[in-house]
Amino acid sequence: MNAEVLSSPRLTDADALIADMGARARAAAKQLAVASTAAKAAALKSAAGQLRAQAAAILDANALDMEAGHEGGLTAAMLDRLRLDEDRLSAIADAVDAVAKLADPVGQEIDHAVRPNGMALSRIRVPLGVVGIIYESRPNVTADAAALGLMSGNAVILRGGSEAVRSNRAIHAAFAAGLVTSGLPADAVQLVPTQDRAAVGALLRAQGLIDIIIPRGGKGLVARVQDEARVPVLAHLDGINHLYIDGAADPDKAVGLAVNAKMRRTGVCGATETILIDRAYAAPLAIIDALIAAGCEVRGDTDIAALSPHVTPASTNDWDCEYLDAIVSIALVDSLTGALAHIDAHSSRHTDAIVTEDKAAAERFLAEVDSAIVMHNASTQFADGGEFGLGAEIGIATGRLHARGPVALEGLTTYKWLVRGAGQVRP
Amino acid sequence: MNAEVLSSPRLTDADALIADMGARARAAAKQLAVASTAAKAAALKSAAGQLRAQAAAILDANALDMEAGHEGGLTAAMLDRLRLDEDRLSAIADAVDAVAKLADPVGQEIDHAVRPNGMALSRIRVPLGVVGIIYESRPNVTADAAALGLMSGNAVILRGGSEAVRSNRAIHAAFAAGLVTSGLPADAVQLVPTQDRAAVGALLRAQGLIDIIIPRGGKGLVARVQDEARVPVLAHLDGINHLYIDGAADPDKAVGLAVNAKMRRTGVCGATETILIDRAYAAPLAIIDALIAAGCEVRGDTDIAALSPHVTPASTNDWDCEYLDAIVSIALVDSLTGALAHIDAHSSRHTDAIVTEDKAAAERFLAEVDSAIVMHNASTQFADGGEFGLGAEIGIATGRLHARGPVALEGLTTYKWLVRGAGQVRP
Repeated sequence: MNAEVLSSPRLTDADALIADMGARARAAAKQLAVASTAAKAAALKSAAGQLRAQAAAILDANALDMEAGHEGGLTAAMLDRLRLDEDRLSAIADAVDAVAKLADPVGQEIDHAVRPNGMALSRIRVPLGVVGIIYESRPNVTADAAALGLMSGNAVILRGGSEAVRSNRAIHAAFAAGLVTSGLPADAVQLVPTQDRAAVGALLRAQGLIDIIIPRGGKGLVARVQDEARVPVLAHLDGINHLYIDGAADPDKAVGLAVNAKMRRTGVCGATETILIDRAYAAPLAIIDALIAAGCEVRGDTDIAALSPHVTPASTNDWDCEYLDAIVSIALVDSLTGALAHIDAHSSRHTDAIVTEDKAAAERFLAEVDSAIVMHNASTQFADGGEFGLGAEIGIATGRLHARGPVALEGLTTYKWLVRGAGQVRP
Repeated sequence: MNAEVLSSPRLTDADALIADMGARARAAAKQLAVASTAAKAAALKSAAGQLRAQAAAILDANALDMEAGHEGGLTAAMLDRLRLDEDRLSAIADAVDAVAKLADPVGQEIDHAVRPNGMALSRIRVPLGVVGIIYESRPNVTADAAALGLMSGNAVILRGGSEAVRSNRAIHAAFAAGLVTSGLPADAVQLVPTQDRAAVGALLRAQGLIDIIIPRGGKGLVARVQDEARVPVLAHLDGINHLYIDGAADPDKAVGLAVNAKMRRTGVCGATETILIDRAYAAPLAIIDALIAAGCEVRGDTDIAALSPHVTPASTNDWDCEYLDAIVSIALVDSLTGALAHIDAHSSRHTDAIVTEDKAAAERFLAEVDSAIVMHNASTQFADGGEFGLGAEIGIATGRLHARGPVALEGLTTYKWLVRGAGQVRP
């Protein structure tokens, strides 16, 4: 082996596969970029129709995935994520129809100006180009991501989890059939045909072929993608979210928000993981008791543990832990300043909230907490593109570049500058 | 050496230096993020004042750099970029004053909505955080980048070229003195204190410490940064810009735009490098002759070479070449469709322009050319933040994510979502 072989990465079969898919996606993206809103909406309606028409084949494929999953020892939670039935499939088709009704971001004018020399400038939204989606378990992502990608004028390359391979192929086949019927290119939505993990590596290295990678799945997947990707990534790794109960919080709101933010669904990234209570707040025990009554394990710092025999002492790790379970860590803090310091040290910059009737405290919290979503008197469980009125979401991003928080159609676009002149030359 | 040593990168002195600078920048960024527009503008005015007050020291430092540059054999062009005099230094101070007058993007509301449950959503611009600038030769970048970073609420880490080290230190010292006088932290603008190239590597790997890297300089620098960076990069590598003369172009505009787009300044990234002429255009020779008369070397395809004995035959490489010189490549194309195909194959997606009186052709060109800036009847030399009315620019980006085209204050911000509720819980 000589130095040249060592220093240049070898082209693998996976690289060649992704290069071919990427080139076909780029060609499709060119057509999609100039497709009318009506054409894209019609294609989505056609895809939704095919998902309904091919329901039997999709459910059969899913039954085989479920059987393999049982044999392969998937957990009950994983099997539930994998499972399709008529209702769930119908909801998937309805979601595709719903995306067809969203406002098309492509061509929207962001701003415009006329320069003193008469040149007219206009900044308009255009598709990103080719979007790679790497996901696990949930076969609905196949249709959801394809629909959002298409409506925003992007070609999509999908790489789903092995456990859902038959379901994903069946959903993809139906979706693609819908596109072709309506005259859009089948290559607009491609599914990586192999479960070889090398294909994921090739996707992550496909600079110039793929414009952005969006991982959807557990922390292991997201961490691998963020670590290995040379293509830009939109994602969030953790949702270590805080609910701060200020001294001036309304006690009913405090209890209601604490229980909802933590317990409504414990497995979602918008769930609260740590509750901070102002030392000046009058009724911390009511919050602890309500959480325990709702079935939550409470881990507290020394002050909180002293309030109730049902509180377990928290360890240092608890303040940096995304439980995604019916467990919460609670600490007493010295006023808003103490809460801000704790959040700055431990938040994953996803969603943090304050409960208070003090407007000035609320505005200071909103201004100083540096997270994608910052809330006042609302449950962190609202951290969701649908709840924000975006119609749907491709994911939530905690990075600082491009798009932040819930990402929907607009986040799948970039812009270009159009300059309309009358022969102006630069002096 | 065991496998562990091989697989984990060693922490170098440069990494430790950048980690320390990054931590101090982050602390400063927190103060800047909540600094008022008035406070930032006052700090910039104070910095501009110090640049004027310390002019003698800065010019002395620059004289030493120039002396070393002469001895080190810098080219005349490099020496010109390096050279400061009273006028140039005065212009640098004026530019800092001008940034202080720009609209502050921080806190601007991008959009807002009230959800059916009464929650009020607002998306507002916030600073990116910590911006790294890696640049060459021109000492004015030290002040320009510091000013734009500061006005957009970001802490800045500057790493200038070795040839300008004394000038950069003197400008940085004056700028920092201005900040401190006005009560903003000196760590808001830091200059990497070593010229060790390992410090550049450490900056490029500083994920989590630095939010974005902006390289300013030649292609070698930009290519290295894009290749090695693990931190996101805003940049353009090439400006392979096209001017397409449509069959329906006005001949006077065509000649005027061709000469200006190519020859006004040949070394800028907005200079046209290739002119495409529609086979149906009546007067291609007048364009060729005007360019030659302006001192431009013309390299043409077979059809163009046949028109004039002064045209050199172009080689394949010419269509992918950023000359940055008084050289142009010219090809005949088959109508707009041929021009679009050539541009798609060879453009660096920086700036491309059409010259035509045919509105439909112009609109098709504006829609289908996938470049950061697309122009109709205007010179590509206008590709510049100042010319676009942005007040100043930190650079021009040809990537698709975050910001595209001329990047100024807005491109140095991200956003966060503010949610104001009245105790809403999610059902």
